[in-house]
Amino acid sequence: MVHKLKIAAAGLGRMGKRHAVNFLHRTPRAELVAAFTPDEGEMAWAKANLEPYGVKLYSDYEEMLNYPGLQAVVIATVTKVHADETLSAIAKDLHVLCEKPISLSIEKSLEVVNAARAKPHLKVMCGFSRRFDSSYRDAHEKMEAGVIGRPAIFRSQTCDKHDPSGFFVQYAALNGGCFVDMSVHDIDLALWFFGEDSIIKSVAASGVAVVQPALREHNDYDNAVGIVEFWGGKIAYFYNSRMMAHGQEDTTEIIGTSGKLVVNGNPQANFVNIYSSAGITREVPPHYYGRFEYAFVTEANEFTAAALDGTKLPLRIGGALRAVEIGSYLQEALTTGKKLYFDETGQPIEKSKL
Amino acid sequence: MVHKLKIAAAGLGRMGKRHAVNFLHRTPRAELVAAFTPDEGEMAWAKANLEPYGVKLYSDYEEMLNYPGLQAVVIATVTKVHADETLSAIAKDLHVLCEKPISLSIEKSLEVVNAARAKPHLKVMCGFSRRFDSSYRDAHEKMEAGVIGRPAIFRSQTCDKHDPSGFFVQYAALNGGCFVDMSVHDIDLALWFFGEDSIIKSVAASGVAVVQPALREHNDYDNAVGIVEFWGGKIAYFYNSRMMAHGQEDTTEIIGTSGKLVVNGNPQANFVNIYSSAGITREVPPHYYGRFEYAFVTEANEFTAAALDGTKLPLRIGGALRAVEIGSYLQEALTTGKKLYFDETGQPIEKSKL
Amino acid sequence: MVHKLKIAAAGLGRMGKRHAVNFLHRTPRAELVAAFTPDEGEMAWAKANLEPYGVKLYSDYEEMLNYPGLQAVVIATVTKVHADETLSAIAKDLHVLCEKPISLSIEKSLEVVNAARAKPHLKVMCGFSRRFDSSYRDAHEKMEAGVIGRPAIFRSQTCDKHDPSGFFVQYAALNGGCFVDMSVHDIDLALWFFGEDSIIKSVAASGVAVVQPALREHNDYDNAVGIVEFWGGKIAYFYNSRMMAHGQEDTTEIIGTSGKLVVNGNPQANFVNIYSSAGITREVPPHYYGRFEYAFVTEANEFTAAALDGTKLPLRIGGALRAVEIGSYLQEALTTGKKLYFDETGQPIEKSKL
Amino acid sequence: MVHKLKIAAAGLGRMGKRHAVNFLHRTPRAELVAAFTPDEGEMAWAKANLEPYGVKLYSDYEEMLNYPGLQAVVIATVTKVHADETLSAIAKDLHVLCEKPISLSIEKSLEVVNAARAKPHLKVMCGFSRRFDSSYRDAHEKMEAGVIGRPAIFRSQTCDKHDPSGFFVQYAALNGGCFVDMSVHDIDLALWFFGEDSIIKSVAASGVAVVQPALREHNDYDNAVGIVEFWGGKIAYFYNSRMMAHGQEDTTEIIGTSGKLVVNGNPQANFVNIYSSAGITREVPPHYYGRFEYAFVTEANEFTAAALDGTKLPLRIGGALRAVEIGSYLQEALTTGKKLYFDETGQPIEKSKL
Repeated sequence: MVHKLKIAAAGLGRMGKRHAVNFLHRTPRAELVAAFTPDEGEMAWAKANLEPYGVKLYSDYEEMLNYPGLQAVVIATVTKVHADETLSAIAKDLHVLCEKPISLSIEKSLEVVNAARAKPHLKVMCGFSRRFDSSYRDAHEKMEAGVIGRPAIFRSQTCDKHDPSGFFVQYAALNGGCFVDMSVHDIDLALWFFGEDSIIKSVAASGVAVVQPALREHNDYDNAVGIVEFWGGKIAYFYNSRMMAHGQEDTTEIIGTSGKLVVNGNPQANFVNIYSSAGITREVPPHYYGRFEYAFVTEANEFTAAALDGTKLPLRIGGALRAVEIGSYLQEALTTGKKLYFDETGQPIEKSKL
Repeated sequence: MVHKLKIAAAGLGRMGKRHAVNFLHRTPRAELVAAFTPDEGEMAWAKANLEPYGVKLYSDYEEMLNYPGLQAVVIATVTKVHADETLSAIAKDLHVLCEKPISLSIEKSLEVVNAARAKPHLKVMCGFSRRFDSSYRDAHEKMEAGVIGRPAIFRSQTCDKHDPSGFFVQYAALNGGCFVDMSVHDIDLALWFFGEDSIIKSVAASGVAVVQPALREHNDYDNAVGIVEFWGGKIAYFYNSRMMAHGQEDTTEIIGTSGKLVVNGNPQANFVNIYSSAGITREVPPHYYGRFEYAFVTEANEFTAAALDGTKLPLRIGGALRAVEIGSYLQEALTTGKKLYFDETGQPIEKSKL
Repeated sequence: MVHKLKIAAAGLGRMGKRHAVNFLHRTPRAELVAAFTPDEGEMAWAKANLEPYGVKLYSDYEEMLNYPGLQAVVIATVTKVHADETLSAIAKDLHVLCEKPISLSIEKSLEVVNAARAKPHLKVMCGFSRRFDSSYRDAHEKMEAGVIGRPAIFRSQTCDKHDPSGFFVQYAALNGGCFVDMSVHDIDLALWFFGEDSIIKSVAASGVAVVQPALREHNDYDNAVGIVEFWGGKIAYFYNSRMMAHGQEDTTEIIGTSGKLVVNGNPQANFVNIYSSAGITREVPPHYYGRFEYAFVTEANEFTAAALDGTKLPLRIGGALRAVEIGSYLQEALTTGKKLYFDETGQPIEKSKL
Repeated sequence: MVHKLKIAAAGLGRMGKRHAVNFLHRTPRAELVAAFTPDEGEMAWAKANLEPYGVKLYSDYEEMLNYPGLQAVVIATVTKVHADETLSAIAKDLHVLCEKPISLSIEKSLEVVNAARAKPHLKVMCGFSRRFDSSYRDAHEKMEAGVIGRPAIFRSQTCDKHDPSGFFVQYAALNGGCFVDMSVHDIDLALWFFGEDSIIKSVAASGVAVVQPALREHNDYDNAVGIVEFWGGKIAYFYNSRMMAHGQEDTTEIIGTSGKLVVNGNPQANFVNIYSSAGITREVPPHYYGRFEYAFVTEANEFTAAALDGTKLPLRIGGALRAVEIGSYLQEALTTGKKLYFDETGQPIEKSKL
């Protein structure tokens, strides 16, 4: 009989539910044995949707980690507890798949990275789902195969459908700002396509708060543009927005010396086109899950395989930290209005020394 | 605990493997308990891929049907045994999901339909996967919602990537010809969009054997076009081909009095576009499974739900028979070169009586 | 100084105006010297738009032909006078560019063809504008260069935007029916891509009158589908419609043994896409002139060059006749409901002899 | 008879030839009466292509301005003489259409602007061809009609096909750098869509010299990205490149509070798609003229109408100056690596005062 990875799910909010269901129903080599949530509404959902499949439910995270034979945990709780929950799991010798970001604090993130490095037999991964998306992977393979020559320019955007409820304004205070919360995915992709060891040279950014002016109270914006220059002749530029009328539009261009790869240049919800007196129309997924659902399924399966077989994961916990770090520099450039400079080791150069 | 539908898989060829895996790993409310194949190579695959998950393997179909507590069977064996295997399963009071076609013989098909109708508590379904595809469903819902007015013209094609190995030539002798084997999907869609009770008025068809001239020995073609006129002012026209250079291209247009819906007018394998000195290129899925993979998963899940809960299926076994019947008329029109006519009850009109 | 072709325009209706303006302003080597119309409204337009540029106006066609030094005439009057006006012009030794069709009568058309052949120094052309369209030409060149192997299947449609005014119903009585009036362009393209000497083997068609039921009084339809089989393993199939909600959609596919060329698979009015809560929308040209404007300009220029330099035209008057002839067979198949058969010389086979 | 604008063409290089031919053959209300070139090769072309149509040729610019009855001149000589030739023409009371830029010197440009303002009866225009492109105009009208709400973010790129001959390296020394030479079109569009009176707040830019490293000797780059922030909550960001493998790709997005307009998001040379074993491919225009040919024709016609009728032009000479000025700031930000800041009147803020 197949040996399955015994995994527990922590946090059953929007994304937590999806992780739990993916490990329960769409990851053949994993067995979701336990789930934790401190929230009553989420617990009710778990009783209806997880318990009937034999999943044991907990309202205490640490208690859940004592589930007999538990091997791994997927963490999708609120950001502020990610790091401590990950540290607890590592301490119990569990593999960890943690939603991004590990922490908004670089120091705390480093603590997690170091704990993970101290136990190299454990798989500790921060979930950058686009790394598991088949289109991004196809583009990366094509680039590796030389289809576009040497990559030099990288454009990527994370653009959400406008949510008039103002949910994002509340969320803004907790999430580190638009470059850390949204563009971090694009930054991670830039590192993947340019090389994980790419070193930043300068960072500049500008933003506006157009449809959610209240974001300015939280020092945040609903549209922002940033440029990250890397040493060695590479430039990435980013756009994030929470103002799209049509739906989610996460588009990436990788431009090389002899060609270009575009991922999702023409968003579409499905294969239907509507021909009407308005013209020809196609619909667009309203949310990122409409675009990346199967990337999350692949993530669950590959994390499981890595934990069971010791195979390599497509990204290490340290890489996630670098993306958050660059996102924080962009955020600093955005909120101060200043351009930031870095030396050839990636260390910030004081303005007074320029 | 969830009660799962105990299901067995018959036939583990290309499509049989996929059905088995879908019921094993991607259908939460089903439990694949048994599988049958008379083929040694397929049995070896089953030992490696099914047995470790607790699936009992059989080299005898009837024996498998005696698996204790079995409730359903999915049949993906060779066409000529579909009908008898379905009849055996119905006799044992099992739900059946059978790959199309039930039979190349209308009489034999009718026998199955009648057996199924005699046991209305059983779900007996012929697998027309496109009925479960999210894009086709979206188009159908839009039509039902009045987006295109009254549908009047239906264009649909099933076009396979050219297989220079000549596999199709061998296959041709067994499969009933291009309209029965390929266009039957498009015909079924026409009935779905025009109404299951649409009555044919005339049928005409023309074909050529261009890349596989040997098909002519089997009275078949590798490219064929047909028109089906229905009573009440509706026309469907079809194209099937086994000659595509670029990949699978199954496209459908539903044209109404105030708009048009197009499904898969622009085939694409994924969201990547390649910009090179050749221009801008996107790749296309090489096979129908690249286009319809998730339709098969939905099919497995909805069949399971219908069997467990007694809910309605999107198509009945009788409907499948009608699609095959129209396909057979197109095939007759194709091979004889004659146009066929039908009265307002759908009965053929003898040419001498015209 | 450049010698310019002195040309006159006959008929100043919708298309006549465009021809006159094209020869006046967009054909450097031509000089529009005269124009004729029997219509008062058109004459008023001519006084405002042609006369100021030195164009002499006539209300009598024959009189205009006596304009001193006249070398050519472009005819865009009503269909029923096309043939006689062309014969008059040939008699006066003038080059002729005549709008299609020459005549709805095959006999009358033949008379024109013979008159033209008797004066081989004259350029007598029937305007099939798509032959001058840069996209169709690019596709033809690619086919000639072997990009798709040997062409075997040809799909082409002429689909007009629905005109609720019912203009087409009135027009229908005069125009020979939908295959002769609309699909004749697609048929001409089929002959161009398959070879002008392609010989028809069978013809079948079906039609419906959905949005203009009054067309049935004129024995015509607003949507029709037809198949033309050619000797030598080639099939063309056609769709015409006057029911499009979104605009003009003239699409052509040429399918060969190793590839496919599609012309205008994704109609668009311009390069703008609108992203809104409805999704992503592009507009479509409302009329054929929005799609083919520059083809008409090229036509005027190439006709002029051919008349001045004696160079070859892309199509001869006889070819136009063949397209109309095939259109008439499709029309016969449509209105009688019968499939028509032809021998290897293209002669109709009597049904009684089948 | 129509009164035509007597116009002369100065400079018959690549673009000069096109202007001359457009005014000669495609501008009904203009008469090209004279042309000037100091270049022997260009003069030979003019003798073959202009003289036969009655155009008088000159090898001296000032002499040409004395052509009897001359009313206007179109200037497409080398950049360094644009300003002086424009001043001479204004002094002779001629309307002027001058290719961009008027001058690389802001002072010299201002001199021209002031000369033009002193003679308000003259039309003096700097040619920003995209203002005359039907797609950009359609987008602008849609924005004005409120389709996207209030515009806030503007993305635009000018990307040329890679020219391995190195022509651009030579050209680079003369043209003011990539933001002035290329992005100036995008900047002009930003001013058009955001409002001509938009005031810059900050400017940042980064560039690389990837395929033409020799550009670094001229302090220039072959790929550059820049952000221009405007007072009042608007951001424009730009990308220019001379490295495209596939052809010209000039794309613009205008993003508003309730929608987005994209111009040329999917470049295409024509309406042909090629389906082959590589997938589905469309070709792209190799040069800007393939994309903007008809914009130049419209420009010639509207300039002529404005000169003859005194009607308003879509852009004034002063606006062109502003685009060049912003381009120069981007160029400064690019070459110094610094972010530049401006006060609410658009005046630069000294870094030391920040």
